[in-house]
Amino acid sequence: MTLLERLQLTYPIIQAPMAGVSTPELAANVSNAGGLGSIGVGATDANGARAMIEDLRARTQRPFNVNLFVHSAPRPDRQREAEWLTILKPLFTEFGAETPKSLRVIYQSFADDDAMLATLVDLAPPVVSFHFGLPSPERIAALKDAGCVLLSTATNLAEAKLAKAAGMDAVVAQGFEAGGHRGMFDPTALDDCLGTLALTRLLVEHAGLPVIAAGGIMDGRAIAAVLDLGAVAAQLGTAFIGCPESSANDAYRQALQGEGALHTVMTKAISGRSARCLPNRFVAWAQQHGDTDCPDYPITYDAGKALNQAAQARGESGFGAQWAGQGAALSRSMAATDLIETLVTEMMALSGQD
Amino acid sequence: MTLLERLQLTYPIIQAPMAGVSTPELAANVSNAGGLGSIGVGATDANGARAMIEDLRARTQRPFNVNLFVHSAPRPDRQREAEWLTILKPLFTEFGAETPKSLRVIYQSFADDDAMLATLVDLAPPVVSFHFGLPSPERIAALKDAGCVLLSTATNLAEAKLAKAAGMDAVVAQGFEAGGHRGMFDPTALDDCLGTLALTRLLVEHAGLPVIAAGGIMDGRAIAAVLDLGAVAAQLGTAFIGCPESSANDAYRQALQGEGALHTVMTKAISGRSARCLPNRFVAWAQQHGDTDCPDYPITYDAGKALNQAAQARGESGFGAQWAGQGAALSRSMAATDLIETLVTEMMALSGQD
Repeated sequence: MTLLERLQLTYPIIQAPMAGVSTPELAANVSNAGGLGSIGVGATDANGARAMIEDLRARTQRPFNVNLFVHSAPRPDRQREAEWLTILKPLFTEFGAETPKSLRVIYQSFADDDAMLATLVDLAPPVVSFHFGLPSPERIAALKDAGCVLLSTATNLAEAKLAKAAGMDAVVAQGFEAGGHRGMFDPTALDDCLGTLALTRLLVEHAGLPVIAAGGIMDGRAIAAVLDLGAVAAQLGTAFIGCPESSANDAYRQALQGEGALHTVMTKAISGRSARCLPNRFVAWAQQHGDTDCPDYPITYDAGKALNQAAQARGESGFGAQWAGQGAALSRSMAATDLIETLVTEMMALSGQD
Repeated sequence: MTLLERLQLTYPIIQAPMAGVSTPELAANVSNAGGLGSIGVGATDANGARAMIEDLRARTQRPFNVNLFVHSAPRPDRQREAEWLTILKPLFTEFGAETPKSLRVIYQSFADDDAMLATLVDLAPPVVSFHFGLPSPERIAALKDAGCVLLSTATNLAEAKLAKAAGMDAVVAQGFEAGGHRGMFDPTALDDCLGTLALTRLLVEHAGLPVIAAGGIMDGRAIAAVLDLGAVAAQLGTAFIGCPESSANDAYRQALQGEGALHTVMTKAISGRSARCLPNRFVAWAQQHGDTDCPDYPITYDAGKALNQAAQARGESGFGAQWAGQGAALSRSMAATDLIETLVTEMMALSGQD
């Protein structure tokens, strides 16, 4: 049975999890339209995940995907955190806000979140995907025993081989074009910056397991292209941000339609890990001040979120985490069901043309 | 008449110019096999270009492409050049060579090379392509009057719009995956690092002229993919380095087959402009020492070539300019005619499968 058959997908289209942007409603509408909808629970705890999964399940009988962050434990470093806050202080001051006294580890990695594992084993979502790394063999076995199909992000061949060795059912080849967080297992390693086209071909030839292509894919032409590369499906994130079912706020939606969509930027300054986003005031600040000395993910994120909150309180939207991939300028605003139909129509038009 | 018809191409495959790697024999064999062969004359003068073009024309009756470097004039800066040589001195010393006393502008830009223009107008190659920027309207008009089809590299939408405004017949969308020199018109600008997939889609939708996709394309699957994206043809460079007709030396060919092919690097240290290459000793040195303070292209290249010569004299091949794209690990060694046939067979197998 192929991966697509196991997932009961009508179309080889996966809506990327996008923690903080996707919603159970978005995911359900994608799944109901014949794609694979996803939610990200990396920014919530086991109780939050349970609520989201139950909400999603109430909206669809079809398979869906639950994405987990499996980042290595951050190294707390009081001095570095204090220095980072000192650098940020003028920005907090500009918005009349107190600079935080200290920073917290705001998200727990699935690597050591027993409550999350118990919740997932209990609810058994049809698909579980991992970002930033792989959990222990015990956790993988527990999810497999629960019947979950397992996916992992890979940004290079070495990560894809680790995913295969760990028993993943497929890898998501995350090209450098992709919006949001780079899935690199080791954030301190040199990034080969492999583009979606090159990475997908490489993994299809050498990874030894099904490949889902991600990064810069915005329409049916690009989906057809990655299938030609040998991918079994395409994963699209940015293409779904404009859907009314996403939780993107107005500023984010407007920014996505602006000139900045042509110039997305990879920065660590928002969260502590490299992530691609629309250029805004905070990103411009980071390009000037550098982002190499920020605390580990997700400690930096605590500062970024506080700063964004302070800025928003004064009506400044340029400090939000407006993740977007390199194809952002091709984004559209339509309901998820219509978007899936449009993507499929574009794909079909191409095969007719061949 | 479509661009492909004007070029009389049997297949939508262009062999990238690759100055220093391509040869008239390679280009002729590609053209004779139904693709578009290219030579790069950016590293030679008008006399050298004449010899290459006449050699190529003697080998094929079919269209071919002659590529020119149209870089902005380097800013000579004696102090910066002296500092760069000081930094390199330990490497020259290691190979028992004198560090050069000063550095020269080793290549003339087509922007101000009247002899090159006269030669091209005289020989009227069927296709002329520009890299690093666009020549003056007068030069463009002279080449058009001579009957040349004109192409320009573009790494982003703004460059593609300039190319259209200047009357180019098509743009080569050079994705971040591509080996060799980034074609950015302004090397000091922030690089959006657009991948081949995202860039090709963007230009196809918004540039208003035919798009040739380049970067990471190694096989028929990838060619089919970029055609799906809306490109009229694919340009492959790295895929042709392994052909016996290229002028790549043994060390380069071996490196292309090694582990490093999975980890190409973008560096300025070799030439003074960002270029993607296989990792080697010089690249590793540049990653440690930084490459932001090197002199302008092609002044830095004078030092890089001297250093490589000194290293090679001692049997060390790790200082050469071993350009390669992100797909390098998929490279093959076969005659150009066989490679074209293989690429076409791979493409055809896919359309049958649809």
